Amino acid sequence: MGSKRTLGVVLFEGFELLDVYGPLEMFGLAADHFEFRLISETGGVVASHQGPKSVCDDSFQSAPAIDMLLVPGGIGTRREVNNPVLLDWLNERSKQAELVASVCTGSALLAKAGVLDGLRATSNKLAFAWACSQSEKVQWQQQARWVEDGKVFSSSGVSAGIDMALAVIAKLVSEQAAEDAANFAEYTWQRDADCDPFASVVGVSESA
Amino acid sequence: MGSKRTLGVVLFEGFELLDVYGPLEMFGLAADHFEFRLISETGGVVASHQGPKSVCDDSFQSAPAIDMLLVPGGIGTRREVNNPVLLDWLNERSKQAELVASVCTGSALLAKAGVLDGLRATSNKLAFAWACSQSEKVQWQQQARWVEDGKVFSSSGVSAGIDMALAVIAKLVSEQAAEDAANFAEYTWQRDADCDPFASVVGVSESA
Repeated sequence: MGSKRTLGVVLFEGFELLDVYGPLEMFGLAADHFEFRLISETGGVVASHQGPKSVCDDSFQSAPAIDMLLVPGGIGTRREVNNPVLLDWLNERSKQAELVASVCTGSALLAKAGVLDGLRATSNKLAFAWACSQSEKVQWQQQARWVEDGKVFSSSGVSAGIDMALAVIAKLVSEQAAEDAANFAEYTWQRDADCDPFASVVGVSESA
Repeated sequence: MGSKRTLGVVLFEGFELLDVYGPLEMFGLAADHFEFRLISETGGVVASHQGPKSVCDDSFQSAPAIDMLLVPGGIGTRREVNNPVLLDWLNERSKQAELVASVCTGSALLAKAGVLDGLRATSNKLAFAWACSQSEKVQWQQQARWVEDGKVFSSSGVSAGIDMALAVIAKLVSEQAAEDAANFAEYTWQRDADCDPFASVVGVSESA
C-alpha cells in the first residue's frame, strides 16, 4: 500500500456531472488511499453539460504522474473524439497508469485513443452504437454494469460509475473499504458487474 | 408549466460532493423544467470536503429569486450551524421558495435556521444525534430514505438525495419525467420514501 494513489480525472466542456462526482464521492470516502487531481487540456474552469463549473488542478502539461485515470462521458465526448491533443494524452497517460477507468461514453474516448485495443469494454446504452463506432478493435459488451479487462475498468451509463468505483476500491484497497464507503453514502452497492437491468429498460441499439 | 424553475444550490466549504451533484444530475436530466444557480455566501470558488472545487454563480446578495432551494450536507455543516449570515439567508429564501430540499446534514442547517419548525424531517445516519441537537422543534424521523412535509423534502445520507430528487421531479413535473431521468442515468430509483435499509446497517444513534 504505502502512500496514496493519485487519481487523475479528465475534464472537458460538456462532461456529465455524475460520471465524475459519483466515483469521486466513493474514492473520497476511502481518502486514506486516494488523492485527486482534476485535469483538463488547458486547466482552469470547465463547465459540465448540466452547467455547473468545476475548477481544474492541472493542465495536461502540468499534471503530475497519475496512478489511476478516470475518464467521464457526457455530450462533450462527441467533440473530444476529434481532439488529437486529448487522445494522445489519454494514450500516453494510460500506458503509465496502474489502472484506467471510464464512465458512460468515456470509453468512446479511450477506444478512439487506442487504449482499449483488444480489450473487452462497455459504454452507456443510449450512445452504444456511437461508442462502438470509435473503434473496431474493441470487444464491446452490450450488457454489463461494468467490465474489467486487464487494467481497464469501463462502466455503462452515469450511475454505473459508482458501482465500478466501489469495485475498484475493493480491488485496490479491500472489500471492507468499499463496503464502508457505500454504507457511509447510504448507497446500495450493486456488486455484480454482469447484472445490467438497463440493457432491457433503455433498449440497446441493434446496430452496435 | 410555463418557464423553468430556478433551483438554487447552497455551497459552503466542506460540502459533500454527491449531496450536490447527485440531485443536480437528475434535475439536469429534466433540463426543460429546471435551471441551476450555485450560490455561496461570497460567491466564487468553493472547495468540497473531498477537495474538488466548484464555481458559484452568485453570492447570497447577488442571487436572483429562486423557486427551489437545495441544501447539501458535509463536514462543513459543523461550522455553518454557527454562521448567522447563512442561517438568516436560508430562513429568508426558504420562505420565498416553492420547495426546499436538503440532503444528509443539510437538514441540520435548515433546523438551526428554523425552517423545519413543527415539521417532520430526516438526516443522515452517522450524524443523526448531532442533527437532532440543532432543534427540538423538529419531528426527527430516524428511519426514512427521505421525508416530505409541507414544502420541505429532507433526505438521509448522500445517495438518498438522488432518490429524493427523483421524487421532487415526479411531484413537480411528472412520474414519467422522473423515470426517464433515472433510466437515462441507468439508476435504479428507490421510490419508497420509507424504505431505509441503512437505518439498520449503519446503526442509528439511540441518543437522537
